[in-house]
Amino acid sequence: MSKSNYVTGLRAVEQLMSTDAAEVRRVYAEYQTVNPRVEAIIAQANERGIEVQPANRARLQQISGEGRHQGVVAEVRRSTVLDEAGLRSLVEEQLESGGDSQLLLLVLDGVQDPHNLGACLRTADAAGVHAVIVPRHGAAGLGPTVSKVAAGAAEQLPFAQVPNIGRVLGWLRDYGVVVIGTSDAAEGSLYDMDLDRPVALVMGREETGLSKSAAARCDDILKLPMQGKVASLNISVATGICLYEVLRQRR
Amino acid sequence: MSKSNYVTGLRAVEQLMSTDAAEVRRVYAEYQTVNPRVEAIIAQANERGIEVQPANRARLQQISGEGRHQGVVAEVRRSTVLDEAGLRSLVEEQLESGGDSQLLLLVLDGVQDPHNLGACLRTADAAGVHAVIVPRHGAAGLGPTVSKVAAGAAEQLPFAQVPNIGRVLGWLRDYGVVVIGTSDAAEGSLYDMDLDRPVALVMGREETGLSKSAAARCDDILKLPMQGKVASLNISVATGICLYEVLRQRR
Repeated sequence: MSKSNYVTGLRAVEQLMSTDAAEVRRVYAEYQTVNPRVEAIIAQANERGIEVQPANRARLQQISGEGRHQGVVAEVRRSTVLDEAGLRSLVEEQLESGGDSQLLLLVLDGVQDPHNLGACLRTADAAGVHAVIVPRHGAAGLGPTVSKVAAGAAEQLPFAQVPNIGRVLGWLRDYGVVVIGTSDAAEGSLYDMDLDRPVALVMGREETGLSKSAAARCDDILKLPMQGKVASLNISVATGICLYEVLRQRR
Repeated sequence: MSKSNYVTGLRAVEQLMSTDAAEVRRVYAEYQTVNPRVEAIIAQANERGIEVQPANRARLQQISGEGRHQGVVAEVRRSTVLDEAGLRSLVEEQLESGGDSQLLLLVLDGVQDPHNLGACLRTADAAGVHAVIVPRHGAAGLGPTVSKVAAGAAEQLPFAQVPNIGRVLGWLRDYGVVVIGTSDAAEGSLYDMDLDRPVALVMGREETGLSKSAAARCDDILKLPMQGKVASLNISVATGICLYEVLRQRR
């Protein structure tokens, strides 16, 4: 995947500058423009410290390809953050390509601590997870602490923020993905489950575990053995153990 | 195991007060003593803020059991910290008892970061490890950060600090314990190893991995699969994955 995307045309760039200016790496604008809307975009970019590169029509056309540039193109940092539609495309693409890399998704159902989120992303990346899915509200999101702990994974791994985890688990099952939750209170063991097929692993929130709505959509809820006197695993360690059991079975 | 041990008799308590007074929870001393050595111990205890409980001969006899109390008994916090001799006793005891809890040791060959040490202790406790072994020098030791991250495990799990990891691995092998190191550069996979027998798992230091001296004593050095673009696991996650593969095989 390329490291940048381009947004072309007055209306699109105006929209972008007003909602996601932090994602804009550079603005290409027609020089000696007489269009006040292009002037306004340039002024906004200057104000926010975004680089403005003067370009002629031929250059703008080259960058924007098919798009109608209207004298302005914005270069956007490629984000690993997906919405639900983007996640669906990724899942469809992965299921269709099939073969040696079976779908593996990690659903973090409400992880609160950015350290834990970062550690889970690092672990998910090492295990070759295709995307991490989190709820848009009531959970840790990406940020500097997450990036630091994730040790590079936050900038690589597709990260989907969705309004409703239960709904996503529902359509994942419609695609034939096996949805597996984990809980200390479960009866069945992860080790008895066939994981050599498309899998979404759902880890609950620290302390409180899986939400009701997520638990209701799981094909199965399984546990890991706990032997210790203190008897709890950090969520990133539990995630690693579960993901690596999937890898072991798929060898 | 009881939470306290008792040290009885003048010479033993004098020794304890001079070398490990911080471990003493309480001193029981004969009241109205005329023995100047008991008086000196009481004075030392008062000076260090250690509780002194007056007791009659019958009470002292009851506490000390078989021991000759000579008018003084010290109650000592049970420490989870073992030296090499203590570790050897624990290993012998565990190998002799045999049965459903086969020996499982975690050797951390020079972990530097107290957060990582704490996270490894928590994981080791959950996996039912019998003891964690670390080098006495050049590695993180127990402390407040470790205790906090370990979430109770640091106060429960036997923790052996030894002068020479290589030597310990040597005598563990003499006892028939399989010593397994881990390295990203290894050829063989953990999943192909028979782990349903007494095992010592050796994890290397962050970044630099296993020391030469430890690597030379391993029966085998194995790796975990890494699939990600960033391709590294935190040491506590890698430890969890390895320990849980042992548990899986022993089910």
